[in-house]
Amino acid sequence: MDTLVTNGTLLTMRGEKLGIVDDGVVAIENGRISYVGPAAEGPDPSDTDDHVDAEGGVVMPGLVNAHTHMAHTLLRGGAQDVPEIEWMNRALGPLSAHADEGDRVAGTRLGVLEAVRAGATTICEYAGEVGTLVEAVYQPLGVDVVAVETINEVPDERGDLGPRERYPFDREQGKAALARADRLFERFGDEPLVTPAYGPQALDMVSPELLETVQQHAHERGAKLHLHTAQGEREAIQIEERYGTDESTVSVLDDLGVVDESLVAVHCHGATPDERRRLAEGGAAMLGCPSSIAAIDGIVPPVAEFREYGAPVGIGTDQAPGPGHHSVFREARTAATLSKVERTDPTALTAPEALRLATVGGAEALGIDDEVGTLEAGTRADLLVVETDQLSTAPAVESPLHTAVPNLVYSTTGREVRDVFVAGEPILRDGAFVDADPEAAVAVATERAQALYERASEDWRAADPELVGAVDDGWL
Amino acid sequence: MDTLVTNGTLLTMRGEKLGIVDDGVVAIENGRISYVGPAAEGPDPSDTDDHVDAEGGVVMPGLVNAHTHMAHTLLRGGAQDVPEIEWMNRALGPLSAHADEGDRVAGTRLGVLEAVRAGATTICEYAGEVGTLVEAVYQPLGVDVVAVETINEVPDERGDLGPRERYPFDREQGKAALARADRLFERFGDEPLVTPAYGPQALDMVSPELLETVQQHAHERGAKLHLHTAQGEREAIQIEERYGTDESTVSVLDDLGVVDESLVAVHCHGATPDERRRLAEGGAAMLGCPSSIAAIDGIVPPVAEFREYGAPVGIGTDQAPGPGHHSVFREARTAATLSKVERTDPTALTAPEALRLATVGGAEALGIDDEVGTLEAGTRADLLVVETDQLSTAPAVESPLHTAVPNLVYSTTGREVRDVFVAGEPILRDGAFVDADPEAAVAVATERAQALYERASEDWRAADPELVGAVDDGWL
Repeated sequence: MDTLVTNGTLLTMRGEKLGIVDDGVVAIENGRISYVGPAAEGPDPSDTDDHVDAEGGVVMPGLVNAHTHMAHTLLRGGAQDVPEIEWMNRALGPLSAHADEGDRVAGTRLGVLEAVRAGATTICEYAGEVGTLVEAVYQPLGVDVVAVETINEVPDERGDLGPRERYPFDREQGKAALARADRLFERFGDEPLVTPAYGPQALDMVSPELLETVQQHAHERGAKLHLHTAQGEREAIQIEERYGTDESTVSVLDDLGVVDESLVAVHCHGATPDERRRLAEGGAAMLGCPSSIAAIDGIVPPVAEFREYGAPVGIGTDQAPGPGHHSVFREARTAATLSKVERTDPTALTAPEALRLATVGGAEALGIDDEVGTLEAGTRADLLVVETDQLSTAPAVESPLHTAVPNLVYSTTGREVRDVFVAGEPILRDGAFVDADPEAAVAVATERAQALYERASEDWRAADPELVGAVDDGWL
Repeated sequence: MDTLVTNGTLLTMRGEKLGIVDDGVVAIENGRISYVGPAAEGPDPSDTDDHVDAEGGVVMPGLVNAHTHMAHTLLRGGAQDVPEIEWMNRALGPLSAHADEGDRVAGTRLGVLEAVRAGATTICEYAGEVGTLVEAVYQPLGVDVVAVETINEVPDERGDLGPRERYPFDREQGKAALARADRLFERFGDEPLVTPAYGPQALDMVSPELLETVQQHAHERGAKLHLHTAQGEREAIQIEERYGTDESTVSVLDDLGVVDESLVAVHCHGATPDERRRLAEGGAAMLGCPSSIAAIDGIVPPVAEFREYGAPVGIGTDQAPGPGHHSVFREARTAATLSKVERTDPTALTAPEALRLATVGGAEALGIDDEVGTLEAGTRADLLVVETDQLSTAPAVESPLHTAVPNLVYSTTGREVRDVFVAGEPILRDGAFVDADPEAAVAVATERAQALYERASEDWRAADPELVGAVDDGWL
């Protein structure tokens, strides 16, 4: 074997619960897990020279950050604390419109390094021309990426439409995006760490014809279709105008036959409980971004609810402007905390349940749970050693309960992640990146951000989000 | 001058907003700030040898953790995700009952080091025999402590009372606690970093006579009276049984004349908006612990609401079992996030507002804002350098808005705190404690926690909180 991880408490996530193994070992061979279980029954330690001593820590599957737009990390701190109606068009939009490809790569690199430093081994990246980001950032770093190509027929230059005016659709734009998505499968077909997927952006942003075509392509390739679903008022109005006042996003999706096991429904906070149940019963998976939806909409996404319907559920950090971060541990904590206040019930979404969402849940929702999300012999060796003997996470005891489990969710800062392996290769050892240069990533991102804000400053002031007033008042 | 902090963006918190100064300096002399403002108008840098270069970071007042019970940090991970009615008596209680003084000191040390590592320079410690913790932990470390002695007349051994049975009161126990509180003022009267205060635990746990006496003592000494106020159903029932069905905690406090500027009302989630307004108008300050109340009660405490009433408001981390942590930055983020979903309003409690709660707000609520909470010439030199050029907090730009401000609240992990000074003395430099030994603190706490759980295990199983079932099912 190539590597033996010893002396740790294993949280394997096997079965329906956490699959805890005290004093366990994980053996890695050719990038895959060859043994996971009690040390006493494991392979002979002398069969390898590469020992990873996990004493004082837990060994667990790498975290799955199941929905992100990493490029926007360049604009962290640029758009938050504003009314929902302003956030996209008046706060973030006037800034992101000035981002060029170099900016998007720099932002993505910053966000991905942050996420991996905090324990992510799989990131779902949702972007236009996502292949560029995969090649520039994800592949050089060597982490798993689910690459979702955004497909959108609404032209960027759509003028100043009122909410009841239907968005125009540019069919050629949609076709070009679908072709880009199709090409991902050829381009990355031989890359085991890249899983392409289709990203029709939202029901108000694609025509029903295109959506059906996308679904057909997804079915042909056994791929997923990631759709922002029932995101809020603006979408609901467009659906009414386009499909009739009795219609909603979910009712139209249902009529179109899009609710099936290829559908990955993102957010869903604007759907009714009945509609959510319909999505789950139809076989759809759900991705929730609690920090983001709380920050931008002031709403708790229905993560706990979908879990109860038996649907595969993952969590993601969405984009940095608003929620501010890309740590999946933090997202798990936020998911649990928000679910509790949503229901006035401290038992809602417990720490172990949140830990499953952050690992195997995300893997199931993305359709890659045969490879990642659990520690199981034969699966890809994506795993973490997380220190539970730090000021923030101690004390860890194993009896009468494993305090490490709640402490991973409620207490980690993200910096307790000591080692990160993807497909058996070390990405982070002793808290330091093996190959990547985080300082350079920060320096480049900061320089580019300064230049971008300078270019965008006038447009931003003209758009006049509430933040302009906050600056002028001395708050920012 | 003794120390000059240069090259930072200053968040002074002076005035009503953030008092931002680009390229500012802070000069320290004899433990106090002698200059704060633009570098161009500051003292001659050659007048000192001790330069702290804050390049790539912000310089701001030390954080104020305004309400904690640090001893329970030893039981982090031991009590969470259970019904509110279980948390105290069936989950935490059977464990904490087995803690001895050494355990309480070890837990306090772990929690205080965690808090200071994450930027706290002032901690309000609420405990029985708090003087022991002050001498064993706070004074050796050299941080500010508001030492609140718990005053409680309800005997620990009160038997198994139904909720409608009045708690018995042990007058001698109350008198002894009051005497301990009084002695704090003699014991620490000459210690500038220790601010004693009175802690009548809650209205259902002290007699009206004792509460009035405590208030009198507080007035005589110009001290604060910290009272857990309207904590929930169990308290509300006791108040009805003792004072009449028309009465509530706030109505009784009002009748007793306890609502005045010496009152520091903690939590307040069980009070009505009218009652909260009455507390604020009566001059009381408010302390909120959003992570804790969300974790234990599934409720958002009225931090944003009290702020709007114009009351001094601080935030605290309460105890680790439940919320899990002692980082004030994280508490600021939680306060903002929870306030947004409570009101379905993403503009509720903005990042800069949350940053004021975490600094000057806490200082005002604790009555020590003449000394701490702002960067101002003449005040105690309690300050931080926080790195905003880390993966988690970058990019920081200064124009057209200071992205560092939202990033401190929404993006910090706590580990970006580079330097911590209290009264001009370095406690943390370059992320390392100058004198304290965090590894030893973790090791001692872990050993003691293991022994405590072993002693308590049988009682814990007998009390049968939901966690016992979770362990048996393989979740914990």
